[in-house]
Parts: sequence; C-alpha cells; structure tokens
Amino acid sequence: MPESEPAQPRPVFQRLTLIGTGLIGSSVARIARERRDLAAEVVVTDSSAAVLDRVAALGFADRIEPDLARSVAGADCVMLCAPVGAYAAIAAAIAPHLEPGAIVTDVGSTKVSVIRDVGPLLPRRVHFVPAHPLAGTEYSGPDAGFTTLFQGRWCLLTPPDGTAPGATEQVAELWRRAGSMVEVMDPVHHDRVLAIVSHLPHLIAFTICGTADDLATEGASIEATRSEVLKFAATGFRDFTRIAASDPVMWRDVFLNNKDALLEMLARFTEDAQAMARAVRWGDAAYIEDRIGRGRKIRQGLIESKQA
Amino acid sequence: MPESEPAQPRPVFQRLTLIGTGLIGSSVARIARERRDLAAEVVVTDSSAAVLDRVAALGFADRIEPDLARSVAGADCVMLCAPVGAYAAIAAAIAPHLEPGAIVTDVGSTKVSVIRDVGPLLPRRVHFVPAHPLAGTEYSGPDAGFTTLFQGRWCLLTPPDGTAPGATEQVAELWRRAGSMVEVMDPVHHDRVLAIVSHLPHLIAFTICGTADDLATEGASIEATRSEVLKFAATGFRDFTRIAASDPVMWRDVFLNNKDALLEMLARFTEDAQAMARAVRWGDAAYIEDRIGRGRKIRQGLIESKQA
Repeated sequence: MPESEPAQPRPVFQRLTLIGTGLIGSSVARIARERRDLAAEVVVTDSSAAVLDRVAALGFADRIEPDLARSVAGADCVMLCAPVGAYAAIAAAIAPHLEPGAIVTDVGSTKVSVIRDVGPLLPRRVHFVPAHPLAGTEYSGPDAGFTTLFQGRWCLLTPPDGTAPGATEQVAELWRRAGSMVEVMDPVHHDRVLAIVSHLPHLIAFTICGTADDLATEGASIEATRSEVLKFAATGFRDFTRIAASDPVMWRDVFLNNKDALLEMLARFTEDAQAMARAVRWGDAAYIEDRIGRGRKIRQGLIESKQA
Repeated sequence: MPESEPAQPRPVFQRLTLIGTGLIGSSVARIARERRDLAAEVVVTDSSAAVLDRVAALGFADRIEPDLARSVAGADCVMLCAPVGAYAAIAAAIAPHLEPGAIVTDVGSTKVSVIRDVGPLLPRRVHFVPAHPLAGTEYSGPDAGFTTLFQGRWCLLTPPDGTAPGATEQVAELWRRAGSMVEVMDPVHHDRVLAIVSHLPHLIAFTICGTADDLATEGASIEATRSEVLKFAATGFRDFTRIAASDPVMWRDVFLNNKDALLEMLARFTEDAQAMARAVRWGDAAYIEDRIGRGRKIRQGLIESKQA
C-alpha cells in the first residue's frame, strides 16, 4: 500500500474508475499507473469490448470491469471520459451503485450540458465536480494516450453552486499531479469561451475539409482534383486538416451540446466573412488590410504569452 | 567567372534582377549567392529605401540598385517579388529598359491577374514566364528569407500560350536548383486550385482572428476576454493564428486579384457551414458525424502523400 512507503505521497483517491478509455481516459490511466499518487487503484470500463481487449493488452489498468454498474462499486472517484452525448445514460446506469461521498467528475468539452444531464441523476450524497482538461491531439482511442498529454495545459473546473470545496480541491489536485494548471470557471462562461477558441475552429476546419472534398469529387476538369488538394495543401489548407482529423463522435456531441454558444459564434464569424467577401468584391483594400492586420496582433499576443 | 571553374555548373542566368526583397525575394537572393549556379550576378531593387539598407547590411545581393528602371538594365532575367497589386506599375516602369530576349518572371500567388496586368505591357521580344513557388512562412521582409525555403516544395509555372519553351525551361531549371519540384499549369486552373487550398484558408484564418478579437474587445463580462482567448488558444484556435500572421499587404493583393475564384470558394464554404449550423440547430447527428468524417479522410490522404 502506498501509505506504508514514506517516500510516496498519499494518493488523491483510493479507487479511480474511468468510464471510457479514449485519448483522455487512457492518458489519465497511464499517468495514474506511472505516478501512483493519483489513485491507489485504477478501474477501467468501456462500452466497447474490443477497446477493453486493447486496454488489457496495453496493460495500463489495475482492473478491467466490463459491467458499468459494477465498475463504480467502491470507487471514491468516478471520471466520465466518454463523448458527452453518452453522459445521461451513463449517469442513470451508475447512480444507484455510487458510494456515498464519492466524487463524480468528467473530462467533457461542454459544461452546461453536462451539469444539466448528469447533475439531477446523482444521489444527494455524491459530489459532482465537472472538469475539462484542455488537451488533446488529432488521435483517439486507447492507443493514443500518453503520460505527458496534460503537462503545462489548463484544466477548467466548473463545480455547480453548493459543491463541497473539498471535493473540488481533490479533483484540482489530481489534475495538478497530472501536470495541469487548474482554474475554476463559471460553466456558462466556459461554454462561450470554448465556443470561440475551440468549438468554432473545429467546425470551420471540418467544414473546409468537406468543401475541398466535394470540389475534388465533382470531377469537373476546372476544379481542383483530390490529388491537387493533397499536393498543394502546404500553402494553408494543411493547417486546418490537423484539427479536422479529430474524433467524429466526440465532436458531434460537443457541437450538439454547446449549440447556443456555437451557433452564436458561427453567426458572428459568418457576418465577418461576408463583410470580407463584400470588401473583396468591391475592392475595399483598406478594410481588407485592416482585418488581416488583426491576425498578426493576436499571433504576437500568443508568442508573448508563450502559447504559440 | 563561374565559366572558368570546371566543377561549377553554368549559371542559369548571367544577371538576375529581383524586384522586391521580402520573404521570397530575399530567399532567392540567398540561394543564388550560396549556390552561384542560379545566376552569375544578383541585382536587387525595392521600393523601400529602408529595406534596401537592410539588404545591404544582410549582404545577400551582389549589387543594390534603388532605381527601378536602371535595375533591369543588362538583366537576362527579371523576377517580380513584390505584392501582385504593384505589378502593373512595375511592368510599366521597367518595360522600356528590358533587354531584348530577357525573361520576365514572378512569384505571385495569383496568375490570371498577373498575365492580365503584366503581359500587355512587355515588349514583343521579352519572354514572360509567370511562376508561383508554393512556399512561405508567417514571417515577411528581407530578414525572413532562408536558403532552404523552397526545398521539396512545388513551383507552378503558368506560361501564356505561345511562350518560348526554352524560356519556360530556364525558369523551371532555376526553381529546380533552388530545391523545388516544378509543374506547368493552366493559369485559370491555378487560380481555382489555389483559391481552395490557400486563399480561402487564409481568408478564414484572418476572419476568425478578427471575430475573436472583436469578442475580446466588446468588454461584456460574459464574453471571452483577450487573455482567455490567448490562454486557451491551444484547443484549436492556435492552428489558425499561424497563417493569420502573414503579410497583410501581400494577402490583400492576393484576395483582390483572385476575386472570382475566391468568392466562389467562399460561397461554397459558407453554404457548407450554414448546412452544418442547421444540423447543429436541429440535432441532425448523422449529418454532423458524416461531414466531420471527411476531415479524417483528407488528413489520412495527406499523411499517405507525406504532405502532412
């Protein structure tokens, strides 16, 4: 037991159950296994038997439990690492089996929907601390995780009003040990900030890849062929394809669960793109130059804040 | 003289005049100076005295000639490396001073407009070989250039009908020696391909940076603050800022000079974004997932073609 080893800090949790083992879940499991101070024991479950076979082969779980209800028994922390669209069903299935005093947390990219879908289903004596680690790559699945994924990255916590401060602090400590910088944020504000910095950029990247793909399949000789799009992608298009390679189910659920903020940001962007189109059509050089100039300022800000 | 050194291949040109010394022009000059087989002599001119002072300090030109007309005297190749919006005025100024048999080429990102603006102004005995090296970084100016910029990158040549094949071949050979892969393309097709792989992605990246900047300056407490946009940019937004940091004057001219193809591609993209917005609003999960799935396929194609 870690408690008997004086050099080892006490684990934050005794038993951490991870529901879902994609990029994020499998990274948390790998970190927990490597450091041993996140949780004394890591239990893993997943709705896919094939994924659990892969988890067994990769060997980053202390215990694999295919049965969702049984996976949360005895856990003092349960972390939802599935697409946010699956949360309500998961919460309903695990609620009767949660230990009194257990903490339920998650890693989803939307927070208002998570509080709406999960909060009402949890027993009164269970703590609920929604979280969102701002980390990811364009890869997904249990093979994609790695132990440095959260290093130096933000993790945003959005505890609903009345959440026990001790529960929030335990989740914060887990993420700090995983390498993250932690910030507590209002869930509505979280969803609006993420809509502009993450969800809208993903929607745009997915869309332009689709637009290019449609052009390439039209087959008219005047259009870009698929091989030309691929050959000449380095001129700008390529930067959009990295984030457009992200997991379709996860992002579908993000879009559907941050609908209002996303549609508002998309409407703002569309107005701005149409204003740019009008300036191009009517040759308004000063307007175009001014709008382009803003990109440089933001990039400079990123370089200064060392986020570039 | 290179001719007297048997180990040195004969230079493609005797005197190469570069009009404009930004990222591309200064890279060509540096390569020519390092290899000595692009041109025996590199003459540089620029409309900015400050830039020419900087070129003198950097020392990559054999000769600096502030007077545009005089800079092309005796040159067997003149390369326009200025923003495409300046081409017509440059062509008018240099036309009376070009040597019979000289080749005029360029590095602009649009090709139909270049042929329209420059072609009619050139004397009959001058060859015109428009070119577009597909290479760049988000940096600009004479300090930004480097000798490996064109290594392994495409250079597209769009010679108008009737161009002497020998002239096209000389320009192709210069770019091959600079490290490029060369392809000859119809100028209309060039402008449409570049509109989707390069010009539209840049317009979108500039626009979303502007949208985010506007949100941050609105000051309403519910919006993302500028520091939040910068802090959390790694979640997607950051990928757009690199290309959005590109040179405003150059890109303003690209947009204005590829108006028709760019507006058509933007219209297609906008339709697709609106279809995605509608699917988000009405919860059409299958549509969203299908469109997102396309991004992965294109990314996979890039990885397979080693362009990622």
